[in-house]
Amino acid sequence: MITRAELQLLRSLRDKKHREAEGLYAVEGEKVVSELLAAGHPFERIYATPSWKGTSTHPVSEEDMGRASHFPTPSCVLAVGRIRREELTPGELSRGLTLALDGVQDPGNVGTIIRVADWFGLDRVLLSPGCADLHSQKVIQASMGSFARVRAVVAPLGAALAGAGVPVIGCALQGRDVHSLPALPSAVVVVGSEGRGLSDEVVGLLSYAVTIPRVGAAESLNAAVAAAVVCDNLRRALG
Amino acid sequence: MITRAELQLLRSLRDKKHREAEGLYAVEGEKVVSELLAAGHPFERIYATPSWKGTSTHPVSEEDMGRASHFPTPSCVLAVGRIRREELTPGELSRGLTLALDGVQDPGNVGTIIRVADWFGLDRVLLSPGCADLHSQKVIQASMGSFARVRAVVAPLGAALAGAGVPVIGCALQGRDVHSLPALPSAVVVVGSEGRGLSDEVVGLLSYAVTIPRVGAAESLNAAVAAAVVCDNLRRALG
Repeated sequence: MITRAELQLLRSLRDKKHREAEGLYAVEGEKVVSELLAAGHPFERIYATPSWKGTSTHPVSEEDMGRASHFPTPSCVLAVGRIRREELTPGELSRGLTLALDGVQDPGNVGTIIRVADWFGLDRVLLSPGCADLHSQKVIQASMGSFARVRAVVAPLGAALAGAGVPVIGCALQGRDVHSLPALPSAVVVVGSEGRGLSDEVVGLLSYAVTIPRVGAAESLNAAVAAAVVCDNLRRALG
Repeated sequence: MITRAELQLLRSLRDKKHREAEGLYAVEGEKVVSELLAAGHPFERIYATPSWKGTSTHPVSEEDMGRASHFPTPSCVLAVGRIRREELTPGELSRGLTLALDGVQDPGNVGTIIRVADWFGLDRVLLSPGCADLHSQKVIQASMGSFARVRAVVAPLGAALAGAGVPVIGCALQGRDVHSLPALPSAVVVVGSEGRGLSDEVVGLLSYAVTIPRVGAAESLNAAVAAAVVCDNLRRALG
């Protein structure tokens, strides 16, 4: 059984401001919760109906799940985790490869980029505060379990990039050919927002911009797609 | 003013079966309709409220737009186009580069892949009948105007690939390193569904599979992301 107070808390977690106030987030769905648990992700509570096959700390009826769920068609499991506010350690960006997101607002893109960072073995993802909220259902779901594996830090990009101490490379429509990237054991790659590209502040902090050669007529590429192509070229250059 | 019959027609076009029965599709939103018009895309009718800045064939009140719209928050323009059923011409796949989608069901992915094909200047996109419907709002919207520029053909992949006459390359988790792709002026690249990958029928018709080298732990890459990385490598190999 879920108490009325619990129900109210669970329902409130669909909003970022309540997640921040409570320090908690909720993620629903058999597939996504299973992926996170398989990756060893810690949850504080797992609400589940009898049809959930995994571990449950709070068994609930389908009726109660229907009340707690953020979805019109609730799933059999809703997991609650504690938000850990990661911070950059001094000099961190100078070690290894970072993917930085400058105002990427679409949660599907942010989640897909976390998955891309996981695939290409990047050391971390850095998100500007204007990005989609890392702890939203859509971001976590689109990451396909990579949310549990990738170190993700939310921080203003200006200060972070200014002191990075390694090449800061922006993805842009005009820049050096991404196919000519040198072997960079440490670097930051910055991907801009879907609509506006990189912010002026970030452009001013770039070592240089790279561009993915265009043969056809599309005006731009999706942010996650661009991030993946640049990561593939980074890895290819490292051999 | 919109007649009752017109209203019923417009609303019915949110469903694939009605689009097919009528031979029409509808696309809504200032940005997407503007992009398509800018690309010279032909529409049969453009319903628009007074706040639409472009051409309109059917001026309507905001109230009527609210009734016709497929969205809870209607935009100022709704364009109706005639579905043109494209077919492969004999030997077509032997000329140039084709991106083939094998059961890609997410409409956002299908639209993003059409945009990728446009960016990398592919000659066509071939969609298996199990893919998301090409004429749905979400596909057209995610293509960001590329829907107007890319030749897209829906056809069963089995027969098409069997007679392709050029290398048929599948994106898979096991295969040759995509970085070692040779220069291929003509080829078909097949991307599988998000959940199940390539179908057995398609696997049996591949010349070979390629894989994007993985450094980290993600289980897979998003279909549009994988398509873009392979296209970038195809173009890079062609020089």
